[in-house]
Amino acid sequence: MSEIVQKLLSGQRLALSRLITLVENGSDKIPQYMSEIHASLGHAYYLGVTGPPGAGKSTLVNRLIAQARSQNLKVGVVAIDPSSPFSGGALLGDRIRMQDHAGDTSVFIRSLATRGAHGGLSRSTRDVVRLMDAFGMDWVIIETVGVGQTELDIMELAHSTLVVLTPESGDTIQTMKAGLLEVADIFVVNKSDREGADKIVHELRAMIEMSPSKKKWKVPVLKTQAFQNQGITELVEVLKEHRATWDKLVSPESQRRLRQAELEEILQDRFLQYFKEALNHQSNLASLIEPVLLGKISAYEGAEQVFQEIMKSR
Amino acid sequence: MSEIVQKLLSGQRLALSRLITLVENGSDKIPQYMSEIHASLGHAYYLGVTGPPGAGKSTLVNRLIAQARSQNLKVGVVAIDPSSPFSGGALLGDRIRMQDHAGDTSVFIRSLATRGAHGGLSRSTRDVVRLMDAFGMDWVIIETVGVGQTELDIMELAHSTLVVLTPESGDTIQTMKAGLLEVADIFVVNKSDREGADKIVHELRAMIEMSPSKKKWKVPVLKTQAFQNQGITELVEVLKEHRATWDKLVSPESQRRLRQAELEEILQDRFLQYFKEALNHQSNLASLIEPVLLGKISAYEGAEQVFQEIMKSR
Repeated sequence: MSEIVQKLLSGQRLALSRLITLVENGSDKIPQYMSEIHASLGHAYYLGVTGPPGAGKSTLVNRLIAQARSQNLKVGVVAIDPSSPFSGGALLGDRIRMQDHAGDTSVFIRSLATRGAHGGLSRSTRDVVRLMDAFGMDWVIIETVGVGQTELDIMELAHSTLVVLTPESGDTIQTMKAGLLEVADIFVVNKSDREGADKIVHELRAMIEMSPSKKKWKVPVLKTQAFQNQGITELVEVLKEHRATWDKLVSPESQRRLRQAELEEILQDRFLQYFKEALNHQSNLASLIEPVLLGKISAYEGAEQVFQEIMKSR
Repeated sequence: MSEIVQKLLSGQRLALSRLITLVENGSDKIPQYMSEIHASLGHAYYLGVTGPPGAGKSTLVNRLIAQARSQNLKVGVVAIDPSSPFSGGALLGDRIRMQDHAGDTSVFIRSLATRGAHGGLSRSTRDVVRLMDAFGMDWVIIETVGVGQTELDIMELAHSTLVVLTPESGDTIQTMKAGLLEVADIFVVNKSDREGADKIVHELRAMIEMSPSKKKWKVPVLKTQAFQNQGITELVEVLKEHRATWDKLVSPESQRRLRQAELEEILQDRFLQYFKEALNHQSNLASLIEPVLLGKISAYEGAEQVFQEIMKSR
């Protein structure tokens, strides 16, 4: 076993921090490290928290951390903002707020840089969550901004997924209807002192009633005011209930499907890496692709020519 | 040259329709067809229209079609909703509205099914837009819902990109600030009879003033009321102006970059296709991956084993 993984498993924060950086940088040691920690996984509870920008997710997460700490649980947080590759201001602000827990060595908060590589984000998240699990966290909270496909993919990893909305989220609900239901184990209407809170709670409940897909677990809709610390204890109770029910909710088939999807994703990248190396060894590459860059032939035609050349030289 | 491509180039709508279906279904004939039409491209003006749900994009597009038709221009529309793989209601409604032009054989509207394959959406769009170009359309309008990364990718194809907002889009602007500026050649504040229109116009102009990246073309901010057919003539004038300026705005380097990105994407898929075939010929695959599916070994470890087996049998 690698030294750094040994240090991680013995609870050294610096090792955790370094390993997360290696994940972010796409280090080629990661496959080995992830295989080494594999047998140490399964302790932590993975909690997903998602919702539109401005819903108060970070404040809510902050409150959840405090609750977990009051029960002496160790908490890791992975914060991701996949939908806004350009912005970042709000996210930084959020991170700063979360530094309430900065002095607490049983809390580890890390925001993941997205850096282009779109498809890679759910994998990086998965790896970081598992590193936190292996480190010994009791809870790992995965916080994402947005409710698009990327967020849905990331949330597949979580045991429980909270979708956080506000009384102003009517549009989001209309747009994302089925997507939201797909991902949510629990709805939270935050900032519930604002006008329209009851209306949105009602809409969500009606939506849940009509959904055929959620039979074994009736998705609860809770009201919170995270900033005023209202409704958090109730939320934690519901989380515990969902966690306790989880084994019954998740079929072995769906577990196998998730593992297979992960395997396919990794295998695909392995193949591509192999071909990228082959490309790098192809000395006439520049002249091969020039007609495409000039717009003289189609990209399809150019791609086929490059492919055939590489096959010839294998 | 294939018969179907000949029919497309001679302006047969049925051929266009069939070719688009082949693109949607990922037919393996598409690379050939796209190469065959390559020399016939470059006539059409590609106009991107994007913005948050509910901004009135479809109505606006409808008005633009009418304007183009009044100048006897042929118009194709490709409508895409990448961010909502599950929903579809609103989109269908939009399509129905656009059937105002259903009897007009110089208008061809097609909404692209997204069907999972996320990364493939910008390529499918590109292919369909080019089919419409080769068919002889004067304008090809690419309408997407949302302002996320996928939409930005798709809009790279357009000569001009309209970002349509409403007086209520304050949040969107805050969240997407840099992303919006990146993509927009023209901002349209639609439903501009509503309260707050001037405020948002002002905010957008301030944002543009502060942006260093848009020097050669000062992004205009227009007000429209698409439903009442207000501001459309002015918008079309601005579009013409942008189109006329386009050659000066776009550097050969950026053109080469786009073509290279497209080539890389296609080449990558070609490689993966090759490996998928290899996987299908690997007879012991099921037993190789079983330990991963059972959770006994990590997906990374399993992927490496499969990769090594395939390399051995080549």
